[in-house]
Parts: sequence; C-alpha cells; structure tokens
Amino acid sequence: MPELRKDPIIGRWVIIATERARRPDQFSDTTRKEPPSDKKCPFDEGNEAATPKEIYAIRPRGTAPNTPGWELRVIPSMTPFLRIEGDLERRGQGLYDVMNGIGAHEIVIETNQHIANMCDLSEDQIAKVVTCYINRILDLEKDLRFKYCLVFKNHGWSAGGGKVKHSRSQLIATPVNPKRVKEELVGARHYYEYHERCIFCDLIRQEIAQKERVIMEIDGFIAIVPFASRFPFEVWILPKKHSCDFVNLPEGQRKDLATIMKQVLLKLKIGLNDPPYNYIIHTAPFRRQKIGYWKTVADDYHWHIEITPRLTRVAGFEWGTGFYICPTTPEAAAKFLREVNITQP
Amino acid sequence: MPELRKDPIIGRWVIIATERARRPDQFSDTTRKEPPSDKKCPFDEGNEAATPKEIYAIRPRGTAPNTPGWELRVIPSMTPFLRIEGDLERRGQGLYDVMNGIGAHEIVIETNQHIANMCDLSEDQIAKVVTCYINRILDLEKDLRFKYCLVFKNHGWSAGGGKVKHSRSQLIATPVNPKRVKEELVGARHYYEYHERCIFCDLIRQEIAQKERVIMEIDGFIAIVPFASRFPFEVWILPKKHSCDFVNLPEGQRKDLATIMKQVLLKLKIGLNDPPYNYIIHTAPFRRQKIGYWKTVADDYHWHIEITPRLTRVAGFEWGTGFYICPTTPEAAAKFLREVNITQP
Repeated sequence: MPELRKDPIIGRWVIIATERARRPDQFSDTTRKEPPSDKKCPFDEGNEAATPKEIYAIRPRGTAPNTPGWELRVIPSMTPFLRIEGDLERRGQGLYDVMNGIGAHEIVIETNQHIANMCDLSEDQIAKVVTCYINRILDLEKDLRFKYCLVFKNHGWSAGGGKVKHSRSQLIATPVNPKRVKEELVGARHYYEYHERCIFCDLIRQEIAQKERVIMEIDGFIAIVPFASRFPFEVWILPKKHSCDFVNLPEGQRKDLATIMKQVLLKLKIGLNDPPYNYIIHTAPFRRQKIGYWKTVADDYHWHIEITPRLTRVAGFEWGTGFYICPTTPEAAAKFLREVNITQP
Repeated sequence: MPELRKDPIIGRWVIIATERARRPDQFSDTTRKEPPSDKKCPFDEGNEAATPKEIYAIRPRGTAPNTPGWELRVIPSMTPFLRIEGDLERRGQGLYDVMNGIGAHEIVIETNQHIANMCDLSEDQIAKVVTCYINRILDLEKDLRFKYCLVFKNHGWSAGGGKVKHSRSQLIATPVNPKRVKEELVGARHYYEYHERCIFCDLIRQEIAQKERVIMEIDGFIAIVPFASRFPFEVWILPKKHSCDFVNLPEGQRKDLATIMKQVLLKLKIGLNDPPYNYIIHTAPFRRQKIGYWKTVADDYHWHIEITPRLTRVAGFEWGTGFYICPTTPEAAAKFLREVNITQP
C-alpha cells in the first residue's frame, strides 16, 4: 500500500509510492537519456487487450467495452501512484503524519490513432477530451474520500512522459488538497477579501488593456504569458468569464476551449521545435461549498490551465527555494508566440 | 537590468534574467543531452585570467590576487542572475509587483585541482569551503539591500551544473526572502508556538530513537533521509545541537561538518553511480533579530543542509501541485546508504 506522508515543517504531502518502488540500480540515467520507444503501442485501436479494462469510453452505441471502434478511452493507470481500495486511516507517528495512499489514478487515451502531440488532434477530438475530463471529475467527486482531482499531461520524455508516443493525459484524485492548490486558493481569497473582486478577473482585464503578454484571444478564452513566469514560454489559458470550477464549463464552450488549446499547443510545437511540455488544469476542490473555510471560493477563484514547456534545466536554487529564474521575458515570449504562424499548408 | 517579479496569486518572486536572455532557437535540447566539456578549465590553477577578478581567496600570505598559489577562490558569476549595482526600486504595475534585480551572485571555486565531485576533496579542503561560505555570508549580510543568502551546489548536468567539471558552489544574496525559506520559518514557528520546542530538535530526537532513517551520526552532526522525502535518496545533514544560523558554526566544528559532508557525498557517488545532485544550505535570514515577525527565529529555527540526488524526472504533476511522488521509501534509502562502503582501497 502506498503511503501519504506530510512534511512536518512545510506541511507538504508526499506520496511514498511503494508499488513503483525501485532499487538503487534501477535509477541509472533515467534523467539523462530517453529510452527507445516500444514497437507495439498499447494505446492504439486494436490493442485493447494490452491495457487494463476501460473505466469510461466514447464509442458508438452497440460496440462492446475493450473492443475496437472507440474514439477515446479512460483506463486505470498501469503503474498507479495511489490505490483505489481501502480506508484513509490518517494517523500520527511521533511528530509525523501518515495516511494510506488512497486515491484514483487514471489515463485518458485521447485518440485511437498513434498521434504523439495533442495539437495534432482535431478540435472536435480535443473537445471530446475536455468533456471526458469533466465527466471523470464529476464521477470521482462522488467518492467522499477524495478532496481534489488533478488533470494533467506530460508530453515528451523530459516532461515526465512515458516511452510510448501516444497522446494521453492523466487524472489523479487525492485525499488531500495539494499544497500548491491551497496556496492559490488562499492567495486568491486574500485578494478577494480586500478588493471584493476575483484576482484572475482583474488580471485578465489588465492583460487585455496592456496587450503585451497576450498570445491570443478568442470568444470566451484568453491565452497569456504570465507576468511572473517561472519558465520561458509558460502559457496560461483562462476563461474570460468568471468561473471557479472547470466542470461547470458549458457544452457550448468546450469547442472554444479546444480551439485555443490546439492553437497554443501548435504554436509551441512549431515555434519551439516540438518541446516537451506539461499542462495542468487548476480548478476548485471538491464539495467546496460545504467547507466553511472555502466558502467564497465560487467568487474568489477562477479555473485555468497552466502550460509549461520544458526548455531549461531546473537547478538546486529553484528546487530548494521556490525562487525561479526565467531567462526570457514574458513580453518577448508572448510576442514570439503571437507571431508563430500555425496555418498549415 | 534583470527584474524581480512577484506572482500576484501565490506570492512567489521570480527573477526575469534579462542578462541571460535567450532567443527561442537557443533552447533546443538543453534538457535532453549534455554538451561536450570544454578543454581548458577556467577554474584550474594557472587559468586565473580566464575568470573575473577574485572577491575572496584562501592563498598564502604574499601571493598576489588572481595569480596561482591559491587554495580556494570566490569570483563573481560570469552569467549573473542578479546585479550588484543599483537601487531596489520596488514598484507596482497595476496589480503586479516588480523590483530591480539587485543582488549578488558569486561562484566558490572549491579547489585549484580539476576535481569534479566535492566528495573527492580532502576533509580539510571541504572545511575551508565551509569557512569560505561563512565569511562570504557575513560579508554580504552587511549590504542592507539583501535579506537572504542562498548557498547551493549544482553537481552534474541534470542538476543544473555547467559544462566545466570542476567542483564549485554558488552564493546568491537576494533582496527578498525566498518563498520556500519563509514557509520553513513559518512552519517551524507554528510548531514552536504550540510546543515551545524547536521542531528540528524534536525531529532529530525522534530519528535517533527510531534509527531507521539515520544514515550516519558523528560528533555534532547527523545525516538522515527525511520522513517525507520528495526525491529518492534525499539526505538532510543537521547539527545535533540547536542553532538557527549556519554562520555561528564554531571553528572547531567545521571539520566535523566537512567529515559528514564528505562521507554522505561519497556514499551517494559510490552507491548510486555518481548521480547529479544539488545541495542547499537552509539557514536563518539576515538581521533576523531586528524584525519583529521573526523574533523567535533563534529558538525556533535550525539550520541544515538538504542534499537531493537527481535520479528521477519530475513531471507536471509535481511541478504544478507541490505534491511529490517518491518511488523509494525513506527507510529503504537510508538502509542502502548506511550500508554503502566508502573505505577506499
């Protein structure tokens, strides 16, 4: 059983992933070079038997689960960080806090084609991925042991992606609120308490007025390079209209989100030579209205997507201090991405 | 002039390093492969002209600065993140906060020999490095613009090290307290307020009693794998006697610190096949006694060194959430490192 352990000083939870445990000699060189890709892709259509049984799929009425014909599949992770079965059993161990590593870890196979980068999917297909995220989050929220659902993507080896080059993303439902999520909620709440306005709404207004960090703007969404970017060419996609929760995205706007995601990811691919990247959906925690502490989260938080290309090595300085060094100004990065031509011949 | 920008939501400062600015095409592949090493090392004895002029050196009386004969040299960084000249000029820009990127960035050349890994220096030489850190911090503290001095090392390419394989470390004096430092101080203070005891002292007592996460213990110092390790084989070295500030380390104990540092780094090199690693000295901020908020820092904080080998890739999940996954239990890591035999034939 994996364990969740809390750092007693910082208050950060860490997953001690015993199921993925590795011996010291199994660590050699994983950070340094990319291993060769396997020949047979378990995520291609026709190879359903190579994966665990599907949890969710978009497939034509009448086709059986785990058979060809699907457009998108969700499966449990083959190497889960957390286990779905069991009790949380939060307990002390001297001055330390531990709990069982209960949670869900799912893989969203975004296409039945062997396509590596999400930006090469059609907008319609990306909209299906968005809908799938929403449906899976809504389902996981029903499990009262879970407090948060993280949706993220690791594209490319240096971004933590696997050997198989098939576009996919991951969902992890956790029994604790991740530290970074809490900080964001607390920071946004402080601002709201003082100004009675959402900090993200104010930030969007200022970015639209100043223009220089805007990459693109469409109906309903804006893509910017954040003012205090940690990484070169970091991009945030935000809904222009206030909304704290990603799952409330109306069906009519999912295609718009797909449009801006595809265009931003294409700009990164074309402009920066197909870099490794991560994205994470930042959204409100589960059942927030019932928790007194977060009572204003509907007004003071604003969901968004943070996309971070992995172009620089991150050194000790950054890891140990949370104090990042970004070698490209956000304004120059935004100008560059604005000008990348994505019209394909 | 580099700029310091504050993330308005999280409150994290970021250095926008215009002096190191890179164009998009200069990012290709830096995370992926290590470039070949240059032939001539600017840090070897005899190549003093290849570096900026020394700020500090340990050299025999009578030898001139920037000439051979030295045992250790400190020079300004050749590619500084921050600039020493100028005013801080903290200012708002709409809802954002900016200040000039004032600070110091120095390189400690730890040896006149072309030795890559600090663990291959003699204990005496490492003790000189420790003394040098203390003297440089004391000097930088006199500059009232600075709030903190970070001392850290990047060893190996994936840990952010440079092309030149010559053992060195870095000092960065910053005009703001880094976020992670603040969190540690606040966390330790909360514990102190409740218990009236230092959390690190309690942690050391518990680790000594439980034994399973202890790597080694010598007079004055202990090396443990922390209970909630973020990374496999993460190691903390702590002074056993309470002390909030690294610069107060008595001269008589510097050799002991050098002993435990050398042994721990040797264990990592031998046991884990010379992995890339970082270490950071966590110590109290400058002039703490004058700041009301940190008034108890002398009793409630405890300096220590955090060493993190870079054996795993860190993925989107970790970056975006501060929620780490460690694939080796701290107990197994400590047992392994305890048993690595470092007696050299």
